[in-house]
Amino acid sequence: MHAIVIEDKQLVWAEVPDPEAAEGEVVVDVTASAVNRADVMQRQGLYPPPPDASAYPGLECSGVISAIGPGVTGHHVGERVCALLAGGGYAERVAVPVGQLLPVPAGLSLVEAASLPEVACTVWSNVVDRDRLRPGETLLVHGGGSGIGTFAVQLGAALGAKVLVTARASKHERLRTLGADLTIDYQNDDFVRSVLNHTGGRGADVVLDIIGAKYLARNVEALAPEGRITVIGMQGGRTAELDLGALMAKRGRVSSTSLRARPAADKARIVAGVRDQVWPLVAAGLVKPIVHGTFPLAEAAAAHELLESSDHFGKILLQR
Amino acid sequence: MHAIVIEDKQLVWAEVPDPEAAEGEVVVDVTASAVNRADVMQRQGLYPPPPDASAYPGLECSGVISAIGPGVTGHHVGERVCALLAGGGYAERVAVPVGQLLPVPAGLSLVEAASLPEVACTVWSNVVDRDRLRPGETLLVHGGGSGIGTFAVQLGAALGAKVLVTARASKHERLRTLGADLTIDYQNDDFVRSVLNHTGGRGADVVLDIIGAKYLARNVEALAPEGRITVIGMQGGRTAELDLGALMAKRGRVSSTSLRARPAADKARIVAGVRDQVWPLVAAGLVKPIVHGTFPLAEAAAAHELLESSDHFGKILLQR
Repeated sequence: MHAIVIEDKQLVWAEVPDPEAAEGEVVVDVTASAVNRADVMQRQGLYPPPPDASAYPGLECSGVISAIGPGVTGHHVGERVCALLAGGGYAERVAVPVGQLLPVPAGLSLVEAASLPEVACTVWSNVVDRDRLRPGETLLVHGGGSGIGTFAVQLGAALGAKVLVTARASKHERLRTLGADLTIDYQNDDFVRSVLNHTGGRGADVVLDIIGAKYLARNVEALAPEGRITVIGMQGGRTAELDLGALMAKRGRVSSTSLRARPAADKARIVAGVRDQVWPLVAAGLVKPIVHGTFPLAEAAAAHELLESSDHFGKILLQR
Repeated sequence: MHAIVIEDKQLVWAEVPDPEAAEGEVVVDVTASAVNRADVMQRQGLYPPPPDASAYPGLECSGVISAIGPGVTGHHVGERVCALLAGGGYAERVAVPVGQLLPVPAGLSLVEAASLPEVACTVWSNVVDRDRLRPGETLLVHGGGSGIGTFAVQLGAALGAKVLVTARASKHERLRTLGADLTIDYQNDDFVRSVLNHTGGRGADVVLDIIGAKYLARNVEALAPEGRITVIGMQGGRTAELDLGALMAKRGRVSSTSLRARPAADKARIVAGVRDQVWPLVAAGLVKPIVHGTFPLAEAAAAHELLESSDHFGKILLQR
């Protein structure tokens, strides 16, 4: 088969051996994959894949099952699926542990389904499973125009939370359409003041952050009592001063998580949670796939270039 | 009545007006109270009491109900109780919201009962309610010789956790008697190395910390995957660098909390949790009051001096 391999920090479409379905795995013939920031970091050599993961980039895909490994029940060749991957999505075929398979949500095309596994698992595992966002609470999402951002805005709104979001001004109108109560132009406005103004001084109950160090102190300032900050990206650096007294005054919490390094059992639990709690919202049209555009899989380099520009809104797909 | 008042950073035994039982409150004739680090900070002017709290120090007491306020049912004059207070325990009488009353645990004297409310509510609300310590997990307790420390070691062991504790070497034998699996001499040993050695490199699932800034980076180093650090004291400073990348590698969490500033409804929920989940362990003898010594209430200044020396082991009581 062909896959995108990383050679000298470049993405190269190359002939590689076919994957095989090991115990508890299936092989999926890939219809579409999607690009994530982690793929860019992997290309740059900053984020090596975990042991046992495919060496090729690609954390999600959709496609059709073409082989079934030993010990697998309840799946069949020809089944249309999408999947959360530890890597290997930028390829014609990929081996997937069955715990990471998801059905194609009702009403979505097979290509669209490739846009959801990574953002749904990331946002659900943090905002719902870990941070327990409740109806009526306030969710602050940084980087609202990203795949994660556009998904988190919709999921927060569907769960009955008030959603505040930082993004470039050019993306505000679309974010309001997705359910954002307040859009904040981070380039010209102080998000702490905007959040406190909008919440009567109370702050955000849950903060989903992709910036890291640069926003840490301000996220604490913008936090409500008993608030939860979760850092899932470090585009603004990894080390920052934390004022434990300021955090104590809020009885606040700072987490930092990633999905890719989780053990397989943990991923399977998250995938099951997404299937049970998120897929019905997608089928009901309350959470939609937001696709900025689609590139041929062999042209993944151009998709990375667009992702790095941050000019996109939603997910960038790769189609075979 | 008489109470300890703070004058010019000194504790002075003075005549003051009697408290009255407001709506939802009772007056307790104090038999005993206990000293806490927060009282020392309040004396030093560093920790002003919250609005509506008594101006006198004292975060817990035991005694006998002597008056019942409007709207109170289920309590009677002459009832023996202990209580979590927002202040005012260093006095002959104190008004208490009924949600903060606890029965005297079976088998304890009325004086001993004064040693438990603050530590039980603090440790339960963090280690159990917030950080969800599970049987078989590892709990790291810093400042093991303190009231909080001696209680946390016992509660952790009673809940089936493995308990590791830092303390001066002179306190180690007594901490092992209370259930500690490993005692670490923080003055001569690197607690990170000790914790990692003892857990086969895995680290502590829950860290209960009274040091703050000075230990933050090392607590992250000593943390297990999915570990929870909760800072409840800042004896080692309040501001420190946090490496979000190191925290992400563990999918870890840093909280900072205090009990005193919580809303009354929240305190009532915590007190109810302690009554339901901790008091049975006390009645069964699995968690014991650890009392270093008792001072007359009028001599609270001497009790503070002992607390500040850190030479004590367990709680220091004030008896009327």
